[in-house]
Amino acid sequence: MEVKNLLAAQSGGPTTAINASLAGVIAGGLQSGNVGTVYGAVHGIEGVLNEQIEDIGGLDLELLKQTPAAYLGSCRNKLPEADEDPAVYERIFQVFAAYNIGYFIYIGGNDSMDTVSKLAMYAERKHIDIAIIGVPKTIDNDLEFTDHTPGFGSAAKYIATTVSEIAQDARVYFLKSVTIVEIMGRHAGWLTAAAALGRNADNAAPHLIYLPEVVFSRTAFVRDIREQFEKGIHNVVVAVSEGIRDEAGQFICDSASAALDAFGHKMLSGAGKVLEHLVANEIGCKVRSIELNVPQRCAGHLRSKTDVEEAFAIGRAGARAAASGETGKMMAFARVSQKPYEIRIVSAPVGQIANREKTVPPEYIDGRHDVTAAMLDYLTPLIQGEVDVQFRDGLPVHLYRK
Amino acid sequence: MEVKNLLAAQSGGPTTAINASLAGVIAGGLQSGNVGTVYGAVHGIEGVLNEQIEDIGGLDLELLKQTPAAYLGSCRNKLPEADEDPAVYERIFQVFAAYNIGYFIYIGGNDSMDTVSKLAMYAERKHIDIAIIGVPKTIDNDLEFTDHTPGFGSAAKYIATTVSEIAQDARVYFLKSVTIVEIMGRHAGWLTAAAALGRNADNAAPHLIYLPEVVFSRTAFVRDIREQFEKGIHNVVVAVSEGIRDEAGQFICDSASAALDAFGHKMLSGAGKVLEHLVANEIGCKVRSIELNVPQRCAGHLRSKTDVEEAFAIGRAGARAAASGETGKMMAFARVSQKPYEIRIVSAPVGQIANREKTVPPEYIDGRHDVTAAMLDYLTPLIQGEVDVQFRDGLPVHLYRK
Repeated sequence: MEVKNLLAAQSGGPTTAINASLAGVIAGGLQSGNVGTVYGAVHGIEGVLNEQIEDIGGLDLELLKQTPAAYLGSCRNKLPEADEDPAVYERIFQVFAAYNIGYFIYIGGNDSMDTVSKLAMYAERKHIDIAIIGVPKTIDNDLEFTDHTPGFGSAAKYIATTVSEIAQDARVYFLKSVTIVEIMGRHAGWLTAAAALGRNADNAAPHLIYLPEVVFSRTAFVRDIREQFEKGIHNVVVAVSEGIRDEAGQFICDSASAALDAFGHKMLSGAGKVLEHLVANEIGCKVRSIELNVPQRCAGHLRSKTDVEEAFAIGRAGARAAASGETGKMMAFARVSQKPYEIRIVSAPVGQIANREKTVPPEYIDGRHDVTAAMLDYLTPLIQGEVDVQFRDGLPVHLYRK
Repeated sequence: MEVKNLLAAQSGGPTTAINASLAGVIAGGLQSGNVGTVYGAVHGIEGVLNEQIEDIGGLDLELLKQTPAAYLGSCRNKLPEADEDPAVYERIFQVFAAYNIGYFIYIGGNDSMDTVSKLAMYAERKHIDIAIIGVPKTIDNDLEFTDHTPGFGSAAKYIATTVSEIAQDARVYFLKSVTIVEIMGRHAGWLTAAAALGRNADNAAPHLIYLPEVVFSRTAFVRDIREQFEKGIHNVVVAVSEGIRDEAGQFICDSASAALDAFGHKMLSGAGKVLEHLVANEIGCKVRSIELNVPQRCAGHLRSKTDVEEAFAIGRAGARAAASGETGKMMAFARVSQKPYEIRIVSAPVGQIANREKTVPPEYIDGRHDVTAAMLDYLTPLIQGEVDVQFRDGLPVHLYRK
């Protein structure tokens, strides 16, 4: 078999495991007998179009693994259909040819799998000999055909840890209080559900959990809080998805319609902030909201060992699959056993995966404001294990592209 | 010497090291020959007034040390002057007598040192034989007469780490962007300054740092951002104190005066949110704000080993000082050597410390939007070392009061 080069790129929002997948792709490529140089394209498919391509075979893989966000940079570029704009495709495959690329690995989420699908179809139609493989990543865990996504377990561990720490903070005063933690996930509640992992025999927080899959009622929410107080819970902790919507389908975060900034422009608030005001106005107790924000997807100092190892393994498997001639596939996890937890890495035709969203199914949702034991069984293995992070001068060491 | 009991309590806002100080007080008390039982009062001085007192001598000190926030609970109770309301003092000392308390250790910030001062003066005036000692804590680092405060180093490490991770996240897209990180510290900029620790040879973020000690100008701020763009920095990261104020002395966070919520009430935003809107309106580039919020004071999973060990040591020293008859003092750190870093634990009359605030001095401030090398020299030793946290089922183990 002719030795060809491998090109890797990253796309979509950052995670703390996407660089572990890149490290896996590099390791898998270098270990394969079929791969010559391992290249990286900077800023995803845009780096291919702009020919911003560099040799990444010599990177320190251990440092790369512990660097959060996307080492190669990312993009949010949705390719046009090939028959609408053939020039884009011609340009991409021209660059592939110039670098003698036989294997292209795209690490990303939903939109990135759309790119993988389109490129693979184009190559097939034009009889271009290149293997194109997608490696999933997203903290949102909303990809079909995979048991879970690399990056999700670490975000879940960060969220569960942080919410349990916030619950400790909320307990210190005797005063009645409500603490609302807003968690990422515009359409899928997987991350918000992960807050439930912080509960234990001594800690019932978060007491209320609102997923975007369940219609949110302001009236019921205020009643839910009052019920917690009546049950004798003084410091109510609420986990709420940024994407909750009311009976009319309107995002709660879009509903602060009277709020204008000093320029007269609409002041967009998160769902947590809107609910904070609701509690202040309707109940009048001490209330605060905390938006966990981007640290959910970039807190590299606290990651799940299971997640990071799986992210590396699926990247390596992607490179190997490409090197053995597979194309138009997304690598995926299949859970072969729950206890003990065991996964197998498989591949699925990427066309069936792209542009779909896996939301939380009904059997994982308990009523209006909780998750089921089945959800916890599903989530628990994904946050197991801690990663030894290399520190220098008191801070985690990151790898920076020059 | 007669064996008497020791009573400890915690007060003010939580930190991730205040329980390490409590562990130190317990260890110091138990190791002293003069102390019988070690008690804890629940919710600070209010726990004394309400006689909510429990034996804490048997706690698992290792778990206690890694539990964030205040294990015993806290309060924000400012004692009246003894001549205005003698009944409060009579009640407190009645409870002390009932439990045969010879040593009272109060772990807290500014207001708590006021309590220590008042109780010690009262005891002296009434010739009551009880040693009353203050042990400092606050993430804000704003106490006088101590080189730094226990709890600050861990918060500084968390902030520097998180800002450096956010900077990685900000770099992934090619698009020009501004990321504003709002950091705690209403009057003192120590925590905001700590964001500068995340800089290194490969990373200049945060590019702009605004402390509450420096008058904040909206016009200059917009110009500062534009200058960064002109210098070729695409992804500008800004660290800003929640307490910045404009030329008129008004808090920036109070200035979104046109913002009303759905109830017609004023919508309070953080300084970061206000500046986000300013950038959106004046520059029009991609901009987001991130409020680090309470995790700054409760993220027990990421702490400075130096801070935690010092917090334990100063708690133990407080118990020992009390046991040897010192009273009316706050324990403090004196930095005896910078390189190698070395501190000594001393004590100072608490009356000189209470109700004062130590803000960042001019020699640590570099112009309008940076800190000096001297500030970094001061800060660096405080974040050194990592704490091995005990995890169970993927999450840090905390101690909970039943």
